[in-house]
Amino acid sequence: MTYCVGLLLDEGLVMLGDTRTNAGFDNISCFSKLQKFHVPGERLMATLTAGNLAISQAVINLIQDGLPDPETGNVETIYTVPTMFRAAALVAEAVRRVHRTHGEAMKQQDVSFDVSIMLGGQIAGRTLRLFHIYAAGNFIEATADTPYLQIGEHKYGKPMLDRAVTRGTSLEEGVKLSLISMDSTLRSNLSVGMPLDLLVYRNDSIDDIVEQRLDEDDAYFAMVRERWSKALVEAHQQIPAPDWLSP
Amino acid sequence: MTYCVGLLLDEGLVMLGDTRTNAGFDNISCFSKLQKFHVPGERLMATLTAGNLAISQAVINLIQDGLPDPETGNVETIYTVPTMFRAAALVAEAVRRVHRTHGEAMKQQDVSFDVSIMLGGQIAGRTLRLFHIYAAGNFIEATADTPYLQIGEHKYGKPMLDRAVTRGTSLEEGVKLSLISMDSTLRSNLSVGMPLDLLVYRNDSIDDIVEQRLDEDDAYFAMVRERWSKALVEAHQQIPAPDWLSP
Repeated sequence: MTYCVGLLLDEGLVMLGDTRTNAGFDNISCFSKLQKFHVPGERLMATLTAGNLAISQAVINLIQDGLPDPETGNVETIYTVPTMFRAAALVAEAVRRVHRTHGEAMKQQDVSFDVSIMLGGQIAGRTLRLFHIYAAGNFIEATADTPYLQIGEHKYGKPMLDRAVTRGTSLEEGVKLSLISMDSTLRSNLSVGMPLDLLVYRNDSIDDIVEQRLDEDDAYFAMVRERWSKALVEAHQQIPAPDWLSP
Repeated sequence: MTYCVGLLLDEGLVMLGDTRTNAGFDNISCFSKLQKFHVPGERLMATLTAGNLAISQAVINLIQDGLPDPETGNVETIYTVPTMFRAAALVAEAVRRVHRTHGEAMKQQDVSFDVSIMLGGQIAGRTLRLFHIYAAGNFIEATADTPYLQIGEHKYGKPMLDRAVTRGTSLEEGVKLSLISMDSTLRSNLSVGMPLDLLVYRNDSIDDIVEQRLDEDDAYFAMVRERWSKALVEAHQQIPAPDWLSP
């Protein structure tokens, strides 16, 4: 399993993923699910992937190697597509191509064709956008109403995002909220695991990218977890008891 | 869908359930999922049910009408079984009987035999216990390590319980925490809905039962929701930003 979250804020983009992959509970590995595609001064894109690792690795390879545009026949890569929409369409086409190659054989082995990809980024002078591409190659985009997307084990970490994240949330708050959302997931699902990969990108500044790997010993994440837990406990203790409950 | 939570605390028992049932998004009804079985001075038991409403209603009827004990042949009801363990076994036998009656026909209609039942309570002079009975009739019991059980849509409301609930948690805190857990679920899953049914029972006092139905206008639940939301927002705002993130 996996948990990845992306926040599309006025100030920029936050993308956070765990690194645990598992083929059964007794076969756990660490793979980064965050990939960055950066052309200095020109474009910054990043993907987060969930689902079958063989599929997502194949897709990430295909979008870098390039695929022919269905209309023009010109080969395009994630580094050359002219718009974020075309970048999402390129990922989608790569997903469908992997399905054409491996889908039938996987089905015969009773392995489901399970992949979800988040794609965020900006091409200089254009709008910062965030997409979620599904296993069928269809995709949705984050909007002002719901400025975050999640893939993988999304339920544990969703309530806090629903309460707090708006487009106007600052990048700083966005980083904290994504880490808090991840913390709730880590506590409840063993198949989501440290270290974490985080990318923070400031809107309209293609080369202003912060990348952090947060491991078990990371002091900042430990502080967030501890203060958050303490604040939650204090918060419910300070709520008065109902008067219909005799003390 | 459904969300129900039960807390087995040293001070007593908290059982909370929503009331929404749905047969598709366009067919939503209100049914209580909380049933109380009380013999004044002698026993207090209660069930919370999730899954197919026809199955759970049939089970609740059977345990009140009675079933023969598999060993003695004597008919026992939820009001006459001598121990909580036998009460859980009675519920389990009722589930299996409903499966024998309806399971095959349901399967032919592609309706899954989906039911989960929480059973909590105490017989005077004996131990307060809390069980979760599955669709196959097997069951587990809450213990000191994990003093709460959930049925239905459990993920959204789990992180807070994991952080805060221990056997030593007071009944007052237990009520607040179960309502907070429900609030997170209500916000994220449309198929879980108000009003809520709450039962609070104080250990070793068979007739000290508080029952509350909390509807949309309930002032206490509204206050809990508002203060909790406010506390969460303040909590993440007060956590310092990471120093690797330029302001």
